[in-house]
Amino acid sequence: MNSTDVTVVRIYLTEEKAHLRELLARLHDQEKVRGVTVFRGISGFGKSGVMHSSSLLDMSLNLPVVVEFFDTPEKVEEILQHLGPEIEPGHIVTWRARVNTGD
Amino acid sequence: MNSTDVTVVRIYLTEEKAHLRELLARLHDQEKVRGVTVFRGISGFGKSGVMHSSSLLDMSLNLPVVVEFFDTPEKVEEILQHLGPEIEPGHIVTWRARVNTGD
Amino acid sequence: MNSTDVTVVRIYLTEEKAHLRELLARLHDQEKVRGVTVFRGISGFGKSGVMHSSSLLDMSLNLPVVVEFFDTPEKVEEILQHLGPEIEPGHIVTWRARVNTGD
Repeated sequence: MNSTDVTVVRIYLTEEKAHLRELLARLHDQEKVRGVTVFRGISGFGKSGVMHSSSLLDMSLNLPVVVEFFDTPEKVEEILQHLGPEIEPGHIVTWRARVNTGD
Repeated sequence: MNSTDVTVVRIYLTEEKAHLRELLARLHDQEKVRGVTVFRGISGFGKSGVMHSSSLLDMSLNLPVVVEFFDTPEKVEEILQHLGPEIEPGHIVTWRARVNTGD
Repeated sequence: MNSTDVTVVRIYLTEEKAHLRELLARLHDQEKVRGVTVFRGISGFGKSGVMHSSSLLDMSLNLPVVVEFFDTPEKVEEILQHLGPEIEPGHIVTWRARVNTGD
C-alpha cells in the first residue's frame, strides 16, 4: 500500500454545542479540511477534576468530545497557527502518521 | 512496563452496515487480527462536504465510523496489502506505537 | 503553535463497569492525570474472538471501551509502571505526540 505523511490532530473539548459547531464550521468553510470526525466520550474528567458520565437518565451532561482530522503536515501546521490561540493549552494533540494514496 | 512495536490502523468509513460487517468479518476470519474496535462518530464531514450529525430524532444518518486495530508492523503491512486496494485513498491512517507485553 | 512532547495512552477494556470505574478513580485520585476520556466502541472483537455489537434492542452487551489520556513522557512512564502489571498484555498502546502549550 502506497502512503504519504499526514499529521493527525485531536482537539479535546466538552460538549458545548455552540462551540463545537463553530469549530466544525470553521474547519469546513475556512480551513477546507478534507474530513473531520467528532467522537463523544462516555465519561472522563478534565482540568476541573469533575467526572462526567453518560447514562440514559442523564443525557444532558457536558461530556467530553474529540474533534479529529488529519491532513498534510504543512496544512495542519497552518491550521494550528490559526486555531492554536483559541484553544486552551493542553487540548490539541498532534502526531505524524501515514495515509493511503491511490497510487 | 515492557513493550513491543505495533502499527496502529484507523480506517475511516461511513456507517453503511453491509460494508462495515464485511470488513469486520474479513479482519476476523481471514486476516486473524487479534482485536478490533469500531467507533461511531457523532458528527463529521468527508470528501462530499456534507455534514452528518446524530440526534435522538435522527438516528438513521450515515454517520462516520472508524475501525481501529493494531498488530505487529509486519502483519499490518501484509493486511494493508490486501485491504488497501479496496479502501478509498485517504481513508486508512497508520502510525507506529508500543504495546505492553506480559514480560 | 508552540508545543511540547507527550505520550498518548489508550487502554482497551470491555465495559465491565466496576473495573472501568476503579481505573478512572485511580487515574484521577492517585495518578493525578490531568485529563481522561473514555470512549465506547459500537462493535468489535478481542482475544476471545467473540464479536460484540450495540443496537437499541441490546444495550447490555459487554462492549469495547477505550480509556485515553496523555501526559508528559516521564509521568506516563511512571503511571504505566503502576498500571502495567494489572492490565492484560496487548491492551495498553502508547505513542509519542505533541500538545499545544500556552506560550
